[in-house]
Amino acid sequence: MRLATFRRRADEPHLRQVGLVLGQGDHVRVHPFDAGFDLVGLLAESPEWRDSQADVAAAGDGLSLDEIVLLPPVYPVAMRDFLTFEAHVDGMERGHGNPGPPAAWYDAPVFLFMAPHAVTGPYDDVAMPPDTERLDFELEVAAIVCRDVRNATLDEARAAIGGYCVMNDWSARDIQGKEMSLKLGPSKGKDFATTIGPWVVTADELDDCRDGDGFLDLPMTVSVNGVRVGEDRSGHMGWSFEQLVSHASRASWVKAGEVLASGTCSTGSLAESWGRTGSLTPPPLQVGDVVEMTIERLGTIRNLVVEPEESVDAVAPARRRSRLEASA
Amino acid sequence: MRLATFRRRADEPHLRQVGLVLGQGDHVRVHPFDAGFDLVGLLAESPEWRDSQADVAAAGDGLSLDEIVLLPPVYPVAMRDFLTFEAHVDGMERGHGNPGPPAAWYDAPVFLFMAPHAVTGPYDDVAMPPDTERLDFELEVAAIVCRDVRNATLDEARAAIGGYCVMNDWSARDIQGKEMSLKLGPSKGKDFATTIGPWVVTADELDDCRDGDGFLDLPMTVSVNGVRVGEDRSGHMGWSFEQLVSHASRASWVKAGEVLASGTCSTGSLAESWGRTGSLTPPPLQVGDVVEMTIERLGTIRNLVVEPEESVDAVAPARRRSRLEASA
Repeated sequence: MRLATFRRRADEPHLRQVGLVLGQGDHVRVHPFDAGFDLVGLLAESPEWRDSQADVAAAGDGLSLDEIVLLPPVYPVAMRDFLTFEAHVDGMERGHGNPGPPAAWYDAPVFLFMAPHAVTGPYDDVAMPPDTERLDFELEVAAIVCRDVRNATLDEARAAIGGYCVMNDWSARDIQGKEMSLKLGPSKGKDFATTIGPWVVTADELDDCRDGDGFLDLPMTVSVNGVRVGEDRSGHMGWSFEQLVSHASRASWVKAGEVLASGTCSTGSLAESWGRTGSLTPPPLQVGDVVEMTIERLGTIRNLVVEPEESVDAVAPARRRSRLEASA
Repeated sequence: MRLATFRRRADEPHLRQVGLVLGQGDHVRVHPFDAGFDLVGLLAESPEWRDSQADVAAAGDGLSLDEIVLLPPVYPVAMRDFLTFEAHVDGMERGHGNPGPPAAWYDAPVFLFMAPHAVTGPYDDVAMPPDTERLDFELEVAAIVCRDVRNATLDEARAAIGGYCVMNDWSARDIQGKEMSLKLGPSKGKDFATTIGPWVVTADELDDCRDGDGFLDLPMTVSVNGVRVGEDRSGHMGWSFEQLVSHASRASWVKAGEVLASGTCSTGSLAESWGRTGSLTPPPLQVGDVVEMTIERLGTIRNLVVEPEESVDAVAPARRRSRLEASA
């Protein structure tokens, strides 16, 4: 089942609804559930109950994509981004002059917490952030958590994952590089936009897409202005999503409404090419570029890079403690 | 005004209330506001309106700290931790064999997003996390945001900060070090507990605690088992909280209910001593240790380190892509 969050173009911007997605390509129609239905809540229900509600929704006329704006399927209560694709780590490390992934990468799936308020809809424009000359994308799979878990076994983790969607973790590489040199990981380098969508495909729909180890194995592609620039498979992750949830929940809460992302797949970003080749080829994204990402069975997100918003001035450099002490 | 979130010991654990804190030391009493009052909502109101509601609450009997459990004042919608104390960065960098803060540190206030679900109450026990032999604390000031802002000027940022509290950003240094070597910043090294409290002191109460540049300047101390191990002043931050909010909000949302923390003050963690001296002195925290932090005007938080919870097994090492390709 495919579940979308949307608003009608004619309605107030804050009025959100959940809808059942039926049809393919130009024939997609979104059939609203009754007001009050919550996407994460629907994911937590049994497939049978969800089917019974979907039957009710499907009986209505439905709306074409022209009549609605698809929103981020969820507004996450927290967002974690992992680093699970070995070949991506390899490319990035070579960019830093290292021979390949550090030994520590293989030990456990490292992640960072991301800006939860930066999620944007699957076809929304993305404004060029301030101060960057190296805007990049990151092609990822995202899992939506529908149950609170702590110390989840792999079985419990599987039951806690309600569905999956496509994610573009937009990244300003020059800002990110500076931030990461201070060892805290990226923040302003990534907090301006994270595109998720186009909708959530429920986990039970994807049982036939698992490999022998139970890893979700879906082809992933990304193009810029219609030219294919990257492709990989989610089966190349070093850990399954169930392992990611279990790891994250070890002595810690993972809560319903969280989004956990795979990290960038191999060739799923420009920076990996920059690392491998030592040159800015393909070039950083510019205003006017269109980035399109498709993951089989999950759908396509497509975003135009637009002019930066008018932003507040950057803050002044640090007040130095030595200056304070000299004047004391 | 001091505002606490609490539950009555006799009530169900999920029943939270907001209360006005009156009195000092052993004579503190918490006077409940009517059910439905929300702490962040109260912070967003004018001081005059808040005072009028506080008068109503204060007319009641109030509860002693024996009758209630103080909870985290807010359950953050997102949490950012900055790195604003120059002397702390200096000590940590020396621990990594570097001569002092990198030039990039002075340019802009770097931060990371933290685990929002890990907040614990001001007197709660903290369980030793799994797999660490280097448990540490971090003494910080935290600001509570009460208004959504984007591209906030310093004046707008000031209006968006509702109040302040004490924060202990508990850290497992050995896990954190491994995670930071992968350049994403700490996650499992910090996501097990973040203590905030004991309550929020509204920003308007602290106007007399600002220095000539408008920086909040409060003495901060930390002790382990009653022995003072660190002290500093919030005036030694490299940026004011208004600058932190403005920076975070540049082309990005900072939302009501967020917590923004100063980062560790100088001598506000054991790791800084370890960095400066090259030895584990004072030693890492052990089960049975009590960490107490006081910030003048904000109050005291005090936590006992207890035995680890029973946790799920660590996940297996990464499935290697080379193995997949060989078997394909």
